[in-house]
Amino acid sequence: MIKVGLYVGRFQPFHMGHIEAIKYALKKVDELIIAIGSAQYSYTLDNPFTTGERITMIRIGLYESGIDTSKYQIVPIPDINIHTLWIAYVKSYTPKFDLVFSNEPLTSRLFKETGIKVESIPYFNRNVCSATEIRKRMISNEDWQSLMPKSVSSYLMEIDGVDRIIELTRTDNPSIQKSKF
Amino acid sequence: MIKVGLYVGRFQPFHMGHIEAIKYALKKVDELIIAIGSAQYSYTLDNPFTTGERITMIRIGLYESGIDTSKYQIVPIPDINIHTLWIAYVKSYTPKFDLVFSNEPLTSRLFKETGIKVESIPYFNRNVCSATEIRKRMISNEDWQSLMPKSVSSYLMEIDGVDRIIELTRTDNPSIQKSKF
Amino acid sequence: MIKVGLYVGRFQPFHMGHIEAIKYALKKVDELIIAIGSAQYSYTLDNPFTTGERITMIRIGLYESGIDTSKYQIVPIPDINIHTLWIAYVKSYTPKFDLVFSNEPLTSRLFKETGIKVESIPYFNRNVCSATEIRKRMISNEDWQSLMPKSVSSYLMEIDGVDRIIELTRTDNPSIQKSKF
Amino acid sequence: MIKVGLYVGRFQPFHMGHIEAIKYALKKVDELIIAIGSAQYSYTLDNPFTTGERITMIRIGLYESGIDTSKYQIVPIPDINIHTLWIAYVKSYTPKFDLVFSNEPLTSRLFKETGIKVESIPYFNRNVCSATEIRKRMISNEDWQSLMPKSVSSYLMEIDGVDRIIELTRTDNPSIQKSKF
Amino acid sequence: MIKVGLYVGRFQPFHMGHIEAIKYALKKVDELIIAIGSAQYSYTLDNPFTTGERITMIRIGLYESGIDTSKYQIVPIPDINIHTLWIAYVKSYTPKFDLVFSNEPLTSRLFKETGIKVESIPYFNRNVCSATEIRKRMISNEDWQSLMPKSVSSYLMEIDGVDRIIELTRTDNPSIQKSKF
Amino acid sequence: MIKVGLYVGRFQPFHMGHIEAIKYALKKVDELIIAIGSAQYSYTLDNPFTTGERITMIRIGLYESGIDTSKYQIVPIPDINIHTLWIAYVKSYTPKFDLVFSNEPLTSRLFKETGIKVESIPYFNRNVCSATEIRKRMISNEDWQSLMPKSVSSYLMEIDGVDRIIELTRTDNPSIQKSKF
Repeated sequence: MIKVGLYVGRFQPFHMGHIEAIKYALKKVDELIIAIGSAQYSYTLDNPFTTGERITMIRIGLYESGIDTSKYQIVPIPDINIHTLWIAYVKSYTPKFDLVFSNEPLTSRLFKETGIKVESIPYFNRNVCSATEIRKRMISNEDWQSLMPKSVSSYLMEIDGVDRIIELTRTDNPSIQKSKF
Repeated sequence: MIKVGLYVGRFQPFHMGHIEAIKYALKKVDELIIAIGSAQYSYTLDNPFTTGERITMIRIGLYESGIDTSKYQIVPIPDINIHTLWIAYVKSYTPKFDLVFSNEPLTSRLFKETGIKVESIPYFNRNVCSATEIRKRMISNEDWQSLMPKSVSSYLMEIDGVDRIIELTRTDNPSIQKSKF
Repeated sequence: MIKVGLYVGRFQPFHMGHIEAIKYALKKVDELIIAIGSAQYSYTLDNPFTTGERITMIRIGLYESGIDTSKYQIVPIPDINIHTLWIAYVKSYTPKFDLVFSNEPLTSRLFKETGIKVESIPYFNRNVCSATEIRKRMISNEDWQSLMPKSVSSYLMEIDGVDRIIELTRTDNPSIQKSKF
Repeated sequence: MIKVGLYVGRFQPFHMGHIEAIKYALKKVDELIIAIGSAQYSYTLDNPFTTGERITMIRIGLYESGIDTSKYQIVPIPDINIHTLWIAYVKSYTPKFDLVFSNEPLTSRLFKETGIKVESIPYFNRNVCSATEIRKRMISNEDWQSLMPKSVSSYLMEIDGVDRIIELTRTDNPSIQKSKF
Repeated sequence: MIKVGLYVGRFQPFHMGHIEAIKYALKKVDELIIAIGSAQYSYTLDNPFTTGERITMIRIGLYESGIDTSKYQIVPIPDINIHTLWIAYVKSYTPKFDLVFSNEPLTSRLFKETGIKVESIPYFNRNVCSATEIRKRMISNEDWQSLMPKSVSSYLMEIDGVDRIIELTRTDNPSIQKSKF
Repeated sequence: MIKVGLYVGRFQPFHMGHIEAIKYALKKVDELIIAIGSAQYSYTLDNPFTTGERITMIRIGLYESGIDTSKYQIVPIPDINIHTLWIAYVKSYTPKFDLVFSNEPLTSRLFKETGIKVESIPYFNRNVCSATEIRKRMISNEDWQSLMPKSVSSYLMEIDGVDRIIELTRTDNPSIQKSKF
């Protein structure tokens, strides 16, 4: 009987911390569903990259790390902003899973309340290996490349991702500057 | 001829200030419509409790205060975020009412502009008897129980409400941390 | 320990069949939550009456039938059109309930799948006592008054409800004629 | 004191009936607001043309008819599908107006209920001069050009409008075939 | 240089026609993005299965057909109901692709208008191998199993899919019976 | 061949900077589409005025500046909050245009990526001639009238606009205080 896990993130951008978390999870389950949250957003300060770009980063990053495509599935999930419904929404969007990997206290509680098992996941170099930190470094022109797989940082250069983030900090377009829905 | 009033709040949570306001209003009208605003939200910092939980708090709090169920109706109203339409939305959701109780200058103006009578309501111990203050005290572990009916504080303990609010301050789940739509 | 039931309808309009169903349910539970579905709609062929008007019909109809306000609560619930989330939405909008009264196979299945008990409810004169039948009779000028409590039919006359329904059949206003969201 | 009228339509497409109605209205008011309803839709059977295309048709059609740009304003208004709010929405989107031109019984009633004056407008050759009839003729390859200003029919040819409508009747793309929201 | 194709469907349910189409496409491209349209819907007549269930059907059906997980990606895409935006939405949700496989005239036109190459795909036994036909056969208890991979028909039995569809034809729950958004 | 430009703003309120920008643009193009962004909002701190009020300000301000109604069109465009779709949305709402006037780096990039020409526009007295500055001065009772056409400041007095903005800073109505969607 195959054991399936669920791991939710926004991956803005995808970095070494995510890779270590996925490797950790794949020791506990046979297959991992990687859910991309806030899927409808992009070109905002908090969500600079499109879902298509995030899928690409995850796939090339996992390929570089030697993780086979048969071991994971990627499922983008739009936010619905009504939190009591979010768990039901995730369940309708994803194949059946047996447990959730999460360190987030409220996510954990919400999943547990519907009878789903939740396991925490050790942090990997949390101080620097966070998407927020990486976006900050991109803006202040510090090293961010070392925090992610080479193929992902190359891809971000290719799509001109750093310039996009810098422009997002400077915008005063009312429709764009709202970093949150 | 029965005189009906409308009183709008979010009741996050329901406290003594609300009870005093309702008592005051019920001296002026025969029946009061208690409208629960932002009804679709819950599990956010500003709106921690579901509409179902808010209805329960109002009913048990008013029962403890000796106010009969025949004197009021509770109507949850979702936010629509287009303010010029909000008054029309409230009117379509509620039975006919004769006047609105509100201290809020803009709400008052919007209702008055559509020809509805608005009356202000004396504040009851406003410094401490506010939902914002109560949520702060819950987080910093100060006395909040004395600011609400006993039955309501018991109910909040029962549903583990304080822990929920504390967890909400710590979350970094992108879908949950947005305290506003 | 109080036993609470949930009963969902659209009440377009409220009629004798609903009253009999509520009476039946109140023999089985101490308190009944009457949920008004499709709450955001009105002035359409399927949903001619506003939520405020539906609340009024229910209250005066139950008053005429001698059912006390302490025995039931009315909760309007907007449609969300994503059915797997509907059950979660209903649960967040309503106080805690112990069982659902429903004859609808799919509603029953969805509630049961989340572990909630469902009971069917005997139909009362189903051929004629249906909201669809009543709206048809209003349009073709046949007797509809006998199918509902006197106070409700009076109220419908007062708000000119029959003319509204007839106008709705004749409209070609693109924004109004869509009878469904 | 300038007298302003409001005239609402979907203009799918704009035809001689609309031009006659606008001419009639401009005898009664100094300035006319032409509101384009269902503004967000296009590429559906009922709403084949975008708002931009509809604005273009109205402008060139009125230019051909000798009506000056100073006499009218065009305001696109998205549908909101909650009809009791529609009147409030129209009012927030448009400059102040003194009366509405409409033959639609429910629209008239809704406007009148908020205290706005409504006047009917004589139909111009209603049997054939309707957008529904024109779309039908386009599909069955009958004469439709004679029902609209020359400049508008030329524009529709230029944007390949007839082929678009024919393709819309044949589509089985789930996202496109829904002719209504 | 890897060549990527896009293939859009609703897969309600996934059948042999889809498998043949995917095999055909994989002769033309190195990798195929399989986009699941109308992703947010389920438990309706047109969209009985959740996105999670549809992902499962696709994966087990392709596995049975010997198609490797490295050759395709599955991306669920919610409907947005504003068709001119749909192409932009698809592009933001998916990794970069070089061509689209589609027989649908309007989809083809919309993609072509944004400069994307579109190729048609030969139909496989179209009369019977369509999701609509399969749902009809399920309702009338005719053979539907032969139209899909064995693993998929077993899965549908396992999740009680036929009963779900039959119940959907009988429902009168206002929130559920609307088969379209 | 007529050359058409597009100029996007929120015009909260309309001021001399906008007028100078429009004059500048009209030297480069024959006709200007003035798009009103965030059209659905009003009665918020960032978007105090309705679209109808903004249209009125633009028309009377341009009239005072001697710009003929035949030279421009006003098109309100609602925000959609999914930025990759915004460009497609603007294009579906507006007649065909040849270039965009914008100083905003991200807007410029998004338009350029779809092949549309973008030109910057010189700022006019940017320090004081900004809507944000004007709203600040209204709140602190400093001179704001000199920053806009006389007819526009008169109109704002007439609709009691300054009091509205001051009330908006003081509100604690949950539905109103959210200054952004």
